[in-house]
Amino acid sequence: MGAGATARCAAIIGTGLIGQGWAIVFARMGWEVRLYDVNAAMLAEARTLILQQLRELEAQGLLDGAQAIIQRVHAAGSLQDALAGASYIQENSPEKVEVKRALFSELDALAEPHAIIGSSTSSIPASQFTEHLAGRQRCLVAHPVNPPYLIPVVELCPAPWTSEEALQGARAVMTAIDQKPVLVRKEIEGFILNRLQGALLQEAFRLAAEGIASAEDIDTTVKDGLGLRWSFMGPFETIDLNAPGGIADYCARYGGLYQSIGATQGECVAWDGQLVAALSDERRSLLPQEDLAKRRFWRDEKLMRLMRHKQDNGDING
Amino acid sequence: MGAGATARCAAIIGTGLIGQGWAIVFARMGWEVRLYDVNAAMLAEARTLILQQLRELEAQGLLDGAQAIIQRVHAAGSLQDALAGASYIQENSPEKVEVKRALFSELDALAEPHAIIGSSTSSIPASQFTEHLAGRQRCLVAHPVNPPYLIPVVELCPAPWTSEEALQGARAVMTAIDQKPVLVRKEIEGFILNRLQGALLQEAFRLAAEGIASAEDIDTTVKDGLGLRWSFMGPFETIDLNAPGGIADYCARYGGLYQSIGATQGECVAWDGQLVAALSDERRSLLPQEDLAKRRFWRDEKLMRLMRHKQDNGDING
Repeated sequence: MGAGATARCAAIIGTGLIGQGWAIVFARMGWEVRLYDVNAAMLAEARTLILQQLRELEAQGLLDGAQAIIQRVHAAGSLQDALAGASYIQENSPEKVEVKRALFSELDALAEPHAIIGSSTSSIPASQFTEHLAGRQRCLVAHPVNPPYLIPVVELCPAPWTSEEALQGARAVMTAIDQKPVLVRKEIEGFILNRLQGALLQEAFRLAAEGIASAEDIDTTVKDGLGLRWSFMGPFETIDLNAPGGIADYCARYGGLYQSIGATQGECVAWDGQLVAALSDERRSLLPQEDLAKRRFWRDEKLMRLMRHKQDNGDING
Repeated sequence: MGAGATARCAAIIGTGLIGQGWAIVFARMGWEVRLYDVNAAMLAEARTLILQQLRELEAQGLLDGAQAIIQRVHAAGSLQDALAGASYIQENSPEKVEVKRALFSELDALAEPHAIIGSSTSSIPASQFTEHLAGRQRCLVAHPVNPPYLIPVVELCPAPWTSEEALQGARAVMTAIDQKPVLVRKEIEGFILNRLQGALLQEAFRLAAEGIASAEDIDTTVKDGLGLRWSFMGPFETIDLNAPGGIADYCARYGGLYQSIGATQGECVAWDGQLVAALSDERRSLLPQEDLAKRRFWRDEKLMRLMRHKQDNGDING
């Protein structure tokens, strides 16, 4: 931490949905939060929107004292004011490399000397927007899932020049605020989460394209099948427990089957044209367009109840 | 139903873990269950093992009256006795095509005329062991996940000659016992569930092989990230809700990213040698070999609590 930096003070730069989510994650764990957005209108309404979400979490029994928590969240009058004293900075600007390059130049110039700077980008490696910086060793990707206050994983992906100190510092920050940091050791498109999701989605699109199953039945196979175990165990632990001798035994027993299946999963199906039209028709028959927003509330309430269930079962740090 | 068949009477042929699970699924919904196994020792202990599992479910608040339920489960003295009067038959023999061919010959010869015969096979298409039967039109795969009383999805996969009547009959049976049937429209290796799991596992092995992430971090990415939503929404509903305009909008926005990722996911990594040794070493450092059995109890208890949570939230038929 620099001379001027305060432990447990975070600057959230960019106050759209993801920025608001980060503010909640930090503030509910007792951190001071400074908000800044170049869009003055967005910045002006950010605290109100954050308070709404805090109250919803309070109503679901996921936190106490929404009113006290929002007192720790401040809208800053300038980028400089937001960064002054912050030991950790989370950037949430649009997914455009030139926007991030310019913004990171400002952040690196204005931040406290030893502040760590994380980017919420889901698709741009840190090396593409930090190479030119004097302080590039303190920059990395810290990719959350939306909303971060309900889905705790954060992918930490350093650039080749990110220092071990900055990486460990970012990991310590994420652990301190009860998120679940994972390390992406090399820069790779999609990091870990979207690569795993993409692999499953590719097979889902392939099964639909080949007429093997409806989108509804593919969804049922996950939500009433695979997804149950995956909500508390990862794929490796799952197979480790699914053979008497553990994962090595599982690979010996079933590796051949999965290799044979895998040999038919190499070709990507394009996500366009008639296939997407048919999938969209099926989804719209199950959920009309005008009900999408309502269903997103349903999803968030489901997630809140699931998190409450996991808390009650002592899973949060398990 | 044939003259002699009784509604809500099921024969469970093969009384290992999967057969026991099926017995619970039927009996807890009020069906009469007849057990049979060529292995007399297995058959002799089946009811005791089923009762143990029923009591565990009762202790977790997932059912009432284990003692009354086990009264509906009977060990039959012969295959013929097991099948007499059964309107639905579930076969759970070893995964060997010649074993299933011979057993299905017996089942088709002895079963009530209109009884439906489902196989629990996870890897052998029904066409490979039913082609020669006079009653092949009433046979199909009904692939459960273990344990079926906690993971409700059942993959129904007809052979080309399975009748629509038998398919719809099997679907009606599965719905009646509160399982979640999905239809695999064409015979394909791995059906739906293992193809989806395989696609995700292939990427998990690939990330580990390329040194991108540890097995532990890949597991965290699923259990504290992707798997939370997937425990109540499938992959299509997930992306449908993740873009303002629904799935078509999502595909337009992110299809390019996933195609680009997908282009690097075509090659399969072999599940053997140093890779599996390294993964096994990591798993055994997290969970020693001697703790595997204990951890399976932990998993089943987690699943039971999750099912209870879903029941409490009205998800079971949602």
